[in-house]
Amino acid sequence: MESQEPNVTKSPLMYLNRVPVKTILEGSDAEPGFVGTTVVVGGWVKVSKEVKEVMPQPPPTSPPMASDARPSPPHPPGTKDVSCVEVLQSRIPFFTTIIRVLGGSTSSPAVRQKLESLIPKPPPPSIFFLQINDGSSVSNLTVVIDSATVPVSAGQILPTGTCVLVHGVLEKPSAHGKQTIELKVEKILHVGTVEQDKYPLSRKRLPLDSLRDYPHIRPRTTTVASVTRIRSGLDFATHTFFQNHGFLHVHVPIITTTDSEGFSEKFQVTTLLRETSKKEASIGVSDADGVSLETVEAAVKKKSSIVEELKRSDSNREALAAALQDLRKTNELAQQVDSREKSKAVTAVKPDLVNFNEDFFGRQSYLTVSGRLHLESYACALGRVYSFGPRFHADKTVSAKHVAEMWTVEAEMAFSQLEDVMKCAEDYFKFLCRWILDNCSEDMTFVSKRIDKTVVHRLEYMDSSFYDKIPYREAVEILRKVTDKAFETQIHYLADEHYRRPVIVYDYPKAVKPFYVRLNDDGKTVAAFEMVVPKIGTVVTGSQNEERFDILNTRIKEFDLSKDQYEWYLDLRRHGTVKHSGFSLGFDLMVLLATGLTDVRDVIPFIRSHGKTNN
Amino acid sequence: MESQEPNVTKSPLMYLNRVPVKTILEGSDAEPGFVGTTVVVGGWVKVSKEVKEVMPQPPPTSPPMASDARPSPPHPPGTKDVSCVEVLQSRIPFFTTIIRVLGGSTSSPAVRQKLESLIPKPPPPSIFFLQINDGSSVSNLTVVIDSATVPVSAGQILPTGTCVLVHGVLEKPSAHGKQTIELKVEKILHVGTVEQDKYPLSRKRLPLDSLRDYPHIRPRTTTVASVTRIRSGLDFATHTFFQNHGFLHVHVPIITTTDSEGFSEKFQVTTLLRETSKKEASIGVSDADGVSLETVEAAVKKKSSIVEELKRSDSNREALAAALQDLRKTNELAQQVDSREKSKAVTAVKPDLVNFNEDFFGRQSYLTVSGRLHLESYACALGRVYSFGPRFHADKTVSAKHVAEMWTVEAEMAFSQLEDVMKCAEDYFKFLCRWILDNCSEDMTFVSKRIDKTVVHRLEYMDSSFYDKIPYREAVEILRKVTDKAFETQIHYLADEHYRRPVIVYDYPKAVKPFYVRLNDDGKTVAAFEMVVPKIGTVVTGSQNEERFDILNTRIKEFDLSKDQYEWYLDLRRHGTVKHSGFSLGFDLMVLLATGLTDVRDVIPFIRSHGKTNN
Repeated sequence: MESQEPNVTKSPLMYLNRVPVKTILEGSDAEPGFVGTTVVVGGWVKVSKEVKEVMPQPPPTSPPMASDARPSPPHPPGTKDVSCVEVLQSRIPFFTTIIRVLGGSTSSPAVRQKLESLIPKPPPPSIFFLQINDGSSVSNLTVVIDSATVPVSAGQILPTGTCVLVHGVLEKPSAHGKQTIELKVEKILHVGTVEQDKYPLSRKRLPLDSLRDYPHIRPRTTTVASVTRIRSGLDFATHTFFQNHGFLHVHVPIITTTDSEGFSEKFQVTTLLRETSKKEASIGVSDADGVSLETVEAAVKKKSSIVEELKRSDSNREALAAALQDLRKTNELAQQVDSREKSKAVTAVKPDLVNFNEDFFGRQSYLTVSGRLHLESYACALGRVYSFGPRFHADKTVSAKHVAEMWTVEAEMAFSQLEDVMKCAEDYFKFLCRWILDNCSEDMTFVSKRIDKTVVHRLEYMDSSFYDKIPYREAVEILRKVTDKAFETQIHYLADEHYRRPVIVYDYPKAVKPFYVRLNDDGKTVAAFEMVVPKIGTVVTGSQNEERFDILNTRIKEFDLSKDQYEWYLDLRRHGTVKHSGFSLGFDLMVLLATGLTDVRDVIPFIRSHGKTNN
Repeated sequence: MESQEPNVTKSPLMYLNRVPVKTILEGSDAEPGFVGTTVVVGGWVKVSKEVKEVMPQPPPTSPPMASDARPSPPHPPGTKDVSCVEVLQSRIPFFTTIIRVLGGSTSSPAVRQKLESLIPKPPPPSIFFLQINDGSSVSNLTVVIDSATVPVSAGQILPTGTCVLVHGVLEKPSAHGKQTIELKVEKILHVGTVEQDKYPLSRKRLPLDSLRDYPHIRPRTTTVASVTRIRSGLDFATHTFFQNHGFLHVHVPIITTTDSEGFSEKFQVTTLLRETSKKEASIGVSDADGVSLETVEAAVKKKSSIVEELKRSDSNREALAAALQDLRKTNELAQQVDSREKSKAVTAVKPDLVNFNEDFFGRQSYLTVSGRLHLESYACALGRVYSFGPRFHADKTVSAKHVAEMWTVEAEMAFSQLEDVMKCAEDYFKFLCRWILDNCSEDMTFVSKRIDKTVVHRLEYMDSSFYDKIPYREAVEILRKVTDKAFETQIHYLADEHYRRPVIVYDYPKAVKPFYVRLNDDGKTVAAFEMVVPKIGTVVTGSQNEERFDILNTRIKEFDLSKDQYEWYLDLRRHGTVKHSGFSLGFDLMVLLATGLTDVRDVIPFIRSHGKTNN
């Protein structure tokens, strides 16, 4: 079923003759719309039904797939079980093979006729109604296939998840329904079938948490498709906002040697963990031992004596190095034994005394926790910059708000102070709320129907509200009246209950914020803020950063951080320092807010969390 | 020098009262422009000069910084050496301290006068001309400071890299020059000084390769600033192109367990390499040995006997496990010795037999080499998707075209074939060329003046040219006539010399392309393509991917890949398979093309290459 190039409507999307479902459905609202137009449409079956035709059809002019075997007795009308049809159809090739083997095309008509009578009769023609979707729209397009003129089996075409590319004419639907247009298929260009027993979406309405096990399949569900479109909308809104406001997008590094927070567990990036190849793993114990068992014992004895010697003298570096070298050999032997035992479970590596000088970058390096420090160096040259990318926390706790890899928007502005950045964060956040309402209305209607009916209203009042800005101590006072729990666990109360809209809390105690946040004149608080929003909690964290060299230097010492690591960062204060501030927005949390969902694992395409990464 | 809120022009950029240099320079072209307007302007000094006033000024009404010490003898007019002025100025606080200590404010005028006569006279007033830049524009704004009315020292304000935030009035320049407007400073709000002896940009025109050692400082150079703006422009152009064409941005994962190419060296992501803390490292040898030296020897002996036993019997898993456990202890001891020896060089870690079941994700995981496979799963649900992010190759060779971390744009389209994706890649590429010419004209003028005078012309003809599309075998024929070198090293000849414009080569031999590329009917070539452009070489690689389950499965076997790893990927063919294709654009190479530079290390903000990562 190769794609040909039929005479089709020129698509507003280029590169394909295929017309997106969205274009057809939107066009059908207009007069005269697309009715009567010939198009190519592709998509995946979401819902389908088969309606049996009441009377057998006359044989089609163009022979269908199994044209030798025409239906004789008319079947009773009605919807038929898919699997029955499938069984019949699946046997036809087998029987036609028998014909070829026994008779072939040159055999006598009598023999041929006799053989043909042995073939089970194919099902009577049906009308297949497929609701298909290509991801361009929440709504599906109805595609109508008459199996009398367009030969295809129910088993091939009906299952949820089947991919079809079809050529046909857009028509007004015969029956009155929600749809104002449907496609009458003239030719099937491609069918991608489904192995129903293995397809996770064959079962009806899998809950979201079960769908997480199928990250590669779940975008085919209506909900995850909507989430993906909203996520992409928020992404473009982010670039639009910052570019319109004179910010430059800077690609801060993922691999870093700088710890930008000091609070988080970090992932290490290395090339030192070598996988034992199958070849190495298959070395027999006798081979390995034949060479090195005695050597190992000798080496260990030598090492022991060297260590003894070291007890007496600390300075024998060379001897120590030799001992360590020997120990490496010991390890290598053990590894070979281990590898052999584990056979082809290639999880074993050559252990070694890890020396980071030998690692790829010549030093320990990590996956970045935050891009703000790197971003600062560009802000302190180019004024306003932003970054948008994945950030990493090797946090083993499972949570609805955090996984190991999450996308973050970071902005940094030179010549700005705390109040400037709080205003910028508020404006950006409101811009996102407004953008989604204006640009993703179909998806917002869907999520408010399916997920959370208050979500549209919430985005509207977040866009139009005044956001209170209160110092941390005032926030603590408010919370003290209503709860005895810790501030961090209760902060969402401010937005959820007290103000019932987003609120900005600023001037945090210096101990709870990173070393680089600017120390206030009281010497106790720092110029940090958090924007707390209903349902989600903290979605933005930000700060004016310390521009004074001496104070920053002291803070680095207070946090017991390695000064070497921050020399480059101190340089920004050493040379042409400037007041500056910035913030980070948890992009995945923003998607939660916009979709009404409550777990980030449902809005992140490929979840990376402790013990979980399956692709 | 705290920032106050003067009565300023409303900035078209929000959040700050500061007006960007770009706004002023662009506004000055218009009539009446900004002349006479009071503004706040900030930036870093690029060039400066000091002009001595001919006649000493009368004492200012508001006392300058060192008002006790007025200048007495008029200095000869002319430009004065900065360091001389600096020396004088730097001594004033010392002498005024003496006054306070000896006399204080309550001492008799006679004593005070006597002491004051000991103080060296401050320099006569000067006019400082500063060319400042805030990153918003290629051009600098001239800022004029009269030290008679606005007290500041030359040493503070003149050095390159000094940060200033000033309040003043925009005026027509007194002297005729390139500039049509300049700022007469009324008040200095902030000065961020420079430690000249440590500042890398104090020396004139550092070459680009030397600047690479200062990634945090180099955006302050005119060239890197322009590169950053062009890069940010190409970034936004990318999002604009794809969003306008119905593509959804999908955040494919950075951490992955799937090898999407099979050709590249990969970085591993782990939490198993534990850094030895300072506390652990300081454990004395005697302490460590006292406990475990004998244990180690015993363990090793035990291990040896177990290994001997294993020679006879392969199945003794338990004993092996015990032996390995003992070896771990041996390693730990050695590590402690090693740690002690290395003292506070905290590069040592606890070695261990690495068991990836114990790693964060419970299996080996890597930094992604390409997002295309993950992207496919979204294309096979939502039609058209793209991704834009960093990709990683642990390649130790140093090259002008490759470093370890590079940004890549990837696009994937369902219902498309090779010719569709070649067209899409060409259109996207042309869109980028046109966008930069239309939206970054000031920067393009600069880079064509400073870096490569042909760059604007090149982008123009790349936008307007017809791109030949030739099969690989034809490309080989062309090259065979002119060279005997390998295809891969000569492919750029096609664009540079033969066609003198971009050319698309397709249908590559299957061995040189990844397993997932669609096998052509000849069984020898695959539906891959590369777009080769003058000066850069291959900037886009793409392919129609294999949609047929059986063939893909065979290809996975042919490449000797672990089928388990690709089960999820095979699912996309198992259920509703579709013809689809996609491409990757090397974004950093695109920035090279747009800037006329020749080494990616000059266009990537923070370079990550073998042995190099310093922040």
